Amino acid sequence: MSRTPLHPTREQIELPMVLDCLSDPIRLAIVYQLAQQERVSSELRCGDFNGLAGKSNLAYHFAKLRECGLMQTRIVGTSRLMRLRREDLDARFPGLLDAVINSAAKDADRLQPLSECDVVEAD
Amino acid sequence: MSRTPLHPTREQIELPMVLDCLSDPIRLAIVYQLAQQERVSSELRCGDFNGLAGKSNLAYHFAKLRECGLMQTRIVGTSRLMRLRREDLDARFPGLLDAVINSAAKDADRLQPLSECDVVEAD
Repeated sequence: MSRTPLHPTREQIELPMVLDCLSDPIRLAIVYQLAQQERVSSELRCGDFNGLAGKSNLAYHFAKLRECGLMQTRIVGTSRLMRLRREDLDARFPGLLDAVINSAAKDADRLQPLSECDVVEAD
Repeated sequence: MSRTPLHPTREQIELPMVLDCLSDPIRLAIVYQLAQQERVSSELRCGDFNGLAGKSNLAYHFAKLRECGLMQTRIVGTSRLMRLRREDLDARFPGLLDAVINSAAKDADRLQPLSECDVVEAD
């Protein structure tokens, strides 16, 4: 059985909230890692981000990413499974997510949490 | 004679700072208006933004935009002339500025300060 916490609908996703959410280097690194992973697996677990920050700090960032509409979370048993809301974001703000992810990839060496992920050159 | 206040160099422009700066609806509207104006005139004056906010509020936002590298300011006599740093931004973060401006144009009716500008559909 899976539970789903509250998410904004596609239409409720707001540009200033999304930009504000992405302005934090740890959240940028989480989004970057989710984007890299999209090709392999659509969902990641909390534990996959352990290199980025402490557990409670991560929980805070996951909530911010969910509340602004960047990330979809579902709870299965004791696990949280997370994925990017790419379709919703691309529909609301065409090109924005890719531009941010490519910019982050370009600056990976400056964005300290990002450089701890396995940085793969963005397309 | 013109004076130039302090600006970050192209290499000093940082992605989290730029995203944070753009997360404010008034600053988004200023950037949007500068982008619309690029085709006609590269520089705008403080007074061109009077519809967006009060004078001291605008001065604060102009400083934030200059400090994060989004905007170039030069002072001529008692006027401040401002333009987008498009070349620097496009070099540092290809596609990002246009994606943000197009997203803002799409959401102009939701972004209250933006809808007070003359919204022209972005390309």
